[in-house]
Amino acid sequence: MRVLGVDPGLTRLGLGVVDGRPGRATLIAVGVARTPSDMALGLRLVSLETEIEAWLDLHRPDAVAVERVFAQANVRTVMGTAQAGAVAIVCAARRGLPVVLHTPSEVKAAVTGSGRADKAQVGAMVARLLRLDGPPKPADAADALALAICHLWRAPAQARLAAALA
Amino acid sequence: MRVLGVDPGLTRLGLGVVDGRPGRATLIAVGVARTPSDMALGLRLVSLETEIEAWLDLHRPDAVAVERVFAQANVRTVMGTAQAGAVAIVCAARRGLPVVLHTPSEVKAAVTGSGRADKAQVGAMVARLLRLDGPPKPADAADALALAICHLWRAPAQARLAAALA
Repeated sequence: MRVLGVDPGLTRLGLGVVDGRPGRATLIAVGVARTPSDMALGLRLVSLETEIEAWLDLHRPDAVAVERVFAQANVRTVMGTAQAGAVAIVCAARRGLPVVLHTPSEVKAAVTGSGRADKAQVGAMVARLLRLDGPPKPADAADALALAICHLWRAPAQARLAAALA
Repeated sequence: MRVLGVDPGLTRLGLGVVDGRPGRATLIAVGVARTPSDMALGLRLVSLETEIEAWLDLHRPDAVAVERVFAQANVRTVMGTAQAGAVAIVCAARRGLPVVLHTPSEVKAAVTGSGRADKAQVGAMVARLLRLDGPPKPADAADALALAICHLWRAPAQARLAAALA
């Protein structure tokens, strides 16, 4: 199973692709899409859409995991985060790909064992799980990989739950 | 000048098209795009995108006005509103159309003279300005028209400001 993780943001949007199964993940690609803060909002969103489409075309993931944004979080940036996330969600759904939202604490718990792990711990565990020499930089890239790993780890349980409810 | 106003929302997204100039507006079309709350978020956003694209194809506006969402507002629905708004913004920007965000109080002030007008006052003034028999229903439709009218009223001042700053 291949998963694209998206850590949404207008200024920096983290993208990470991993292949694998629960307990075993391999890095395929990682990067960050950026847009200048003085660009019109619409053009920023279109620029992010173009980048996400290119990643979907190139890496052909089976699912897309996007960080769930909470309105309570940093009020100044949360709307841009929600808007950038919506673009990623719509790009995936348009192709019929399953889109799953994971909360930051779900992601932290999945990769570190603790829902309250800090950025450094998440980066270090992502590096260890993917057998990298060091944490991916910037943090948005590491967070996108952590989202994708979280989805790999959790997907079988979510599929069983969906089947049980069907 | 023709303006498409969009009152964003996941469950109900208001759409209103007006033609005119400051002080004189004519109704072209008004409606609401709806998505069921039990549909997956990605499919809801794609459904709204399809509807907005159809309106852009049919009515060919010169500009799109979208309500600016604040994170402080109703926390339960604000993320969905931001996501639906992002879809409208990206649809417009993809076509190279100018997208302008107006706050609710700017819209109320533009159509009623008071930034603190209630829904009923906005609906009544939209009906009067567009020479309709009564306020458009539901409120999302009236709000979309109010946004479009607000943009018509404000566009010349904004263009002068942009020119002065250029």
